[in-house]
Amino acid sequence: MQNNKFELDGWKLTTHELDKENKRFQESLTSIGNGYMGMRGMFEESYSGDKHEGIYLAGVWYPDKTRVGWWKNGYPEYFGKVINTVNFMKLAFYIDGAEVDLYTDTISDFTHELDMYNGLLTRFFIITKGTKRVKFTVQRFVSLATKELCAISVQFENLGAAATIKVASAIDANVTNEDANYDEKFWQVVEKEVVATDGLLVARTIENNFDIPQFTVGFKMTHEQTGFAVQAAVETEQEIVTNYEATIETGEKVVLEKRILVVTSRDFETVESIKEQLNSLTQTLASSTYDEIKTAHQTLWHRRWDLADVEIGGDVSAQQGIRFNIFQLFSTYYGEDARLNIGPKGFTGEKYGGATYWDTEAFAIPFYLSLAAPEVTENLLDYRHQQLPQAQHNARQQGLAGALYPMVTFTGVECHNEWEITFEEIHRNGSMVYAIYNHANYTGDESYLLTKGIDVITEISRFWADRVHFSKRQGQYMMHGVTGPNEYENNVNNNWYTNYMAQWTLRYALETLPKLSAEKRESLQITAEETAKWSDIVEKMYLPHDEQEDVFLQHDTFMDKDLTPVAELDPASLPLNQNWSWDHILRSPYIKQADVLQGVYYFPENFTLEEKKRNFDFYEPLTVHESSLSPSVHAILAAEIRYEEKAVEMYERTARLDLDNYNNDTEDGLHITSMTGSWLAIVQGFAGMRVSDHELSFKPFLPEKWENYRFHINFRGRLLLITVTTAGTDVKLIKGEPLTITVDEKPRVLKVEEAAK
Amino acid sequence: MQNNKFELDGWKLTTHELDKENKRFQESLTSIGNGYMGMRGMFEESYSGDKHEGIYLAGVWYPDKTRVGWWKNGYPEYFGKVINTVNFMKLAFYIDGAEVDLYTDTISDFTHELDMYNGLLTRFFIITKGTKRVKFTVQRFVSLATKELCAISVQFENLGAAATIKVASAIDANVTNEDANYDEKFWQVVEKEVVATDGLLVARTIENNFDIPQFTVGFKMTHEQTGFAVQAAVETEQEIVTNYEATIETGEKVVLEKRILVVTSRDFETVESIKEQLNSLTQTLASSTYDEIKTAHQTLWHRRWDLADVEIGGDVSAQQGIRFNIFQLFSTYYGEDARLNIGPKGFTGEKYGGATYWDTEAFAIPFYLSLAAPEVTENLLDYRHQQLPQAQHNARQQGLAGALYPMVTFTGVECHNEWEITFEEIHRNGSMVYAIYNHANYTGDESYLLTKGIDVITEISRFWADRVHFSKRQGQYMMHGVTGPNEYENNVNNNWYTNYMAQWTLRYALETLPKLSAEKRESLQITAEETAKWSDIVEKMYLPHDEQEDVFLQHDTFMDKDLTPVAELDPASLPLNQNWSWDHILRSPYIKQADVLQGVYYFPENFTLEEKKRNFDFYEPLTVHESSLSPSVHAILAAEIRYEEKAVEMYERTARLDLDNYNNDTEDGLHITSMTGSWLAIVQGFAGMRVSDHELSFKPFLPEKWENYRFHINFRGRLLLITVTTAGTDVKLIKGEPLTITVDEKPRVLKVEEAAK
Repeated sequence: MQNNKFELDGWKLTTHELDKENKRFQESLTSIGNGYMGMRGMFEESYSGDKHEGIYLAGVWYPDKTRVGWWKNGYPEYFGKVINTVNFMKLAFYIDGAEVDLYTDTISDFTHELDMYNGLLTRFFIITKGTKRVKFTVQRFVSLATKELCAISVQFENLGAAATIKVASAIDANVTNEDANYDEKFWQVVEKEVVATDGLLVARTIENNFDIPQFTVGFKMTHEQTGFAVQAAVETEQEIVTNYEATIETGEKVVLEKRILVVTSRDFETVESIKEQLNSLTQTLASSTYDEIKTAHQTLWHRRWDLADVEIGGDVSAQQGIRFNIFQLFSTYYGEDARLNIGPKGFTGEKYGGATYWDTEAFAIPFYLSLAAPEVTENLLDYRHQQLPQAQHNARQQGLAGALYPMVTFTGVECHNEWEITFEEIHRNGSMVYAIYNHANYTGDESYLLTKGIDVITEISRFWADRVHFSKRQGQYMMHGVTGPNEYENNVNNNWYTNYMAQWTLRYALETLPKLSAEKRESLQITAEETAKWSDIVEKMYLPHDEQEDVFLQHDTFMDKDLTPVAELDPASLPLNQNWSWDHILRSPYIKQADVLQGVYYFPENFTLEEKKRNFDFYEPLTVHESSLSPSVHAILAAEIRYEEKAVEMYERTARLDLDNYNNDTEDGLHITSMTGSWLAIVQGFAGMRVSDHELSFKPFLPEKWENYRFHINFRGRLLLITVTTAGTDVKLIKGEPLTITVDEKPRVLKVEEAAK
Repeated sequence: MQNNKFELDGWKLTTHELDKENKRFQESLTSIGNGYMGMRGMFEESYSGDKHEGIYLAGVWYPDKTRVGWWKNGYPEYFGKVINTVNFMKLAFYIDGAEVDLYTDTISDFTHELDMYNGLLTRFFIITKGTKRVKFTVQRFVSLATKELCAISVQFENLGAAATIKVASAIDANVTNEDANYDEKFWQVVEKEVVATDGLLVARTIENNFDIPQFTVGFKMTHEQTGFAVQAAVETEQEIVTNYEATIETGEKVVLEKRILVVTSRDFETVESIKEQLNSLTQTLASSTYDEIKTAHQTLWHRRWDLADVEIGGDVSAQQGIRFNIFQLFSTYYGEDARLNIGPKGFTGEKYGGATYWDTEAFAIPFYLSLAAPEVTENLLDYRHQQLPQAQHNARQQGLAGALYPMVTFTGVECHNEWEITFEEIHRNGSMVYAIYNHANYTGDESYLLTKGIDVITEISRFWADRVHFSKRQGQYMMHGVTGPNEYENNVNNNWYTNYMAQWTLRYALETLPKLSAEKRESLQITAEETAKWSDIVEKMYLPHDEQEDVFLQHDTFMDKDLTPVAELDPASLPLNQNWSWDHILRSPYIKQADVLQGVYYFPENFTLEEKKRNFDFYEPLTVHESSLSPSVHAILAAEIRYEEKAVEMYERTARLDLDNYNNDTEDGLHITSMTGSWLAIVQGFAGMRVSDHELSFKPFLPEKWENYRFHINFRGRLLLITVTTAGTDVKLIKGEPLTITVDEKPRVLKVEEAAK
């Protein structure tokens, strides 16, 4: 855990300290986004200290070459990289010709504040240079109302002797990537235009050798100002700069507003059409003031919060945690664009290539199912359905039938290039099917399953059927050479979770086939031989189990390990991934994230409470939770077996994972997809929400420290508000048809209260 | 298998076909070297077709950055690359101003010939351009007499109308590496000098970020000519070129000889001293003609052959194979420089980084023990002894005690960067100890073992003792997470071979300690606690064994695999490494190279013939021999259990592995270290040579197709000549004290024949 220097507050992240040693950490925490673009909490103006500047555009990336595993067939050719886009926020401030640099200057009254309710990032600070003393107020947001818009406002208030203030406002294409292999530049300037103080720059990603289309992006900056003597914009090779200058007396203020519009070739194909769109958006916004566009933006954030806010009484730390997670999730993805998915770092960093992982299906879909319109989930399912041909290609790369969804991708084609993940962490395929099942189960609507979902399920079934082998020695089907969700073991045989998911997929496919229309069934061309094989595998699948401990066995030889619990390790060795060599980790019994327990979590009806407890008791003491995805599953299971203290501990870890830097890597960016975990821990954990056999149920408990908590969910066309207090659980139907639910195993009939109708 | 287009001949590789489709393959086969430098059989002059040009200098390399496994602690920072040096052979030929290019020109009477007896590479060809017709004779060698010297002679004979011949002779620093990641250039020019037709160029490897010293290399070219009108040399930025021109009448000849001297900072530190050495060598050689320096060179090759030649009667293909292997091995390494080792590709390519592998200890040391002076083997052992601190560093990188010798290295520090190899293929440590044991056993002299060898053995013992773990469940010591010699399985548990080598090492250490001097023993600081632990591990080491098949078990779950033999596979799937995805290979039971059988081979006394047979019968049908190191061990074991046909099949595969391109990758370079395999197959296989308990024994058989075979060996100060014919086995003592040996289990007393004394 690390002190983030931000104050505890339900709606804000506010700090009065510029933590120069940990600037990257603070930048990550103060990231903002609107699903279309976003950026780290970097300063607009020059800062000479250590920093990690990054502005990212959804769906804009570069296929960088990779040279690993050259002797291993089946590897992907490139790794898709999220690329830091052209720096369109760039400003430089000068007081009497001396540039402002918060790393070296004398600063006072520093405040940096992320307002989550309003979606605003604001800074205040006073710079003193001799007798000169200027107060800066810098605010920015990326608009929910106009996705292409980033707006920045800077106010300069002279608190000292009369001074000349100069501002240079730029669009700068000379940017690098934090994770570039050889300091490559990924952008080239295509066009520049300057009209008065407006600047327009079009840049294109550099060529690649993998037939991936280049992206073209247009940026247009306009300015509004009060009190400046204007100078026209100038161009250099990589940059457009507009300079402003004002001499202001003591007590006077000047204000500069910068608006940047960003249009990409994902929406407008040609440079001409990009420019037209930029100019048209500029026109549309021209009549609105900064305050007006800000209000439009804030209103949309308020609407999101009305539907999704989780209120926690009596624990401001927990409250801040859950809201921070929801804010960052919605900043990354709100389901408007079916071509996009939820990158593990969103717009807050470059690590992991930033593309699509199985996190979406395992952790994000339950969140969006409950908190957003049904189309959002269907968009996420469709994303995979559209990429079925690429998933078939991935399976073919391994010489296998059916489809293998990628570990990391932008296009559906696998990008990841570590064999033990790329080729072996195939349990991900199970989560693709689980998400379709989850959607049908939660919504009660099987139409997606029976039309599109089954396409994916069939191809994944074909994959599993080809990937298992029959062991004559054991008389069972087995799956060798896999990596389970616990990536701290690689290339194991018969990972229980993977084998279970394969068996479950085949069974679910067999159960679903009879429900299909004749036409649909025909189109899938499933032979009798195939279904016979699937049935045989379902029947004879080997699911390792340890007799002595009576637990599901993580994989064949797990019990031969030295099973010292985490609690007995030297604390200096944690986190293991920063202190132990990779081989040491692999040999150890320590579990990065829920593995057997992931399966137990996915299918609550399939296991008895005793089984859940035994497996939790065995695996939890060996779990180091060094994946951000780990604690939430443990929180939910702990809650179910009424290990309340453990559930709360796990909740806190997931809710404040980034705020408190639990894994010591938040400086690289936020763990966006795992942020759903804190919501899952409250809703599926503390409140015990389940949907089984068309029945919605809750079995809540109230964490000891909390006074109460409440949250909304969407369920089958209704909006519900659940409130848990010491007095008990109240469930209100806010909107929709009457509904019978179960609370603490007793039925309740819900109707919308008259006044609310 | 691929037709190499070279004729079968006992001493030569001769082709009359320029195989443009397979030029790289032919280039590999026509490589030459002198232990100090060497090059592929590239043409001196321009060739516009596909080719792989490479000239390499022993011990000159570059640490290239690597970005794999960034989240895995313990990885090396760089990968050492063999770098293609400055092209000092470069020539260009012009006939009446038109450049000669064998790819596009009309050629006739083409001959390319590697003369292994004399160490010469010669080409003849006639170029016809209209009425012009010129016969070229191009010869080169790298001198055994003056290691820094490469000599090239070109004769132009006019067979057509009078023509102007122009030759440009250059030293060109503008070279790239076949395996560069980003087409980086590794050389920069430091100095150039031109005096008349002589040129001197000094180049330096570019800077690196890993504190590896840069290499500086000086090249000096001088020329002798008859019949040319001389022009002075000229410089460009990266190149020095000397131009010659002659107009010659029909029937006339002109000759140009080019000598290049190469001096590196490995021997002379400063640019000044490099230049001095170049000039001094030039002076020394100035009085010798091309024929004189050639004769000096040839004489030394003849001397080598006198000691090491293997003669095979009745099978010219087998004869060519064994001589080709010995020629290429001696071209790579003849033991003159203790700072060098035997790269897997020698001077014939860049693949594998070209540095030091465990191949040396496992396969090359037995060869040099028998065929070279004892100092050569001791130099090879010393190489590892000197690198003990680096091996300790490698172990520390993994958080382990003792020493871990690297998989790939130039300096002793691990360069390899695949975790399943770097961290897991630790059986290599066992071969370091085996080589010391092998030396003591073969020579009968334990002084190396007891002075330096034990330093290495102690530290490796400490490594094993830390790397095993005690499984409470099984009550035994185990070793999880290893890769055995069969690299087609990774991260397995309890690889029999690795566990056996660890147990053997600890036992050997415990047996050796009492023999040490008190002082030596003191210096090792081995505690009683340590030896107690070692004894405990020796006693309780788990060595997997399968009851049903009664074989040593390759690793814990091997029998659960689908054990279809190789013979039943679709032949189109072979070689697997070019047709199957990596995960498919890993899941399969197919064995790249001897694994269990490697252990059986290492310790012939430790296993009964029945055990050898059972394990061979079980594992050989699953072995695909896709490592060049594989067939020799199988040949030797097959010979021992009198599977003569199989032994010959395996011999042929190892002897002509590159000549017939068995693994379809000879175009990348020759498999130098595995070339010892054909010698081992004859000597340890067919002739059944063993050294056990100070006794040298043979148990020969004569392959059916052969009329006879004979070879020399060094043994404990003697030189022996062994001749095997249909009539039986003759062993002659050529030099040294009388000796009793065993042939076919009967003793023979050998004395030098009077006449030979």
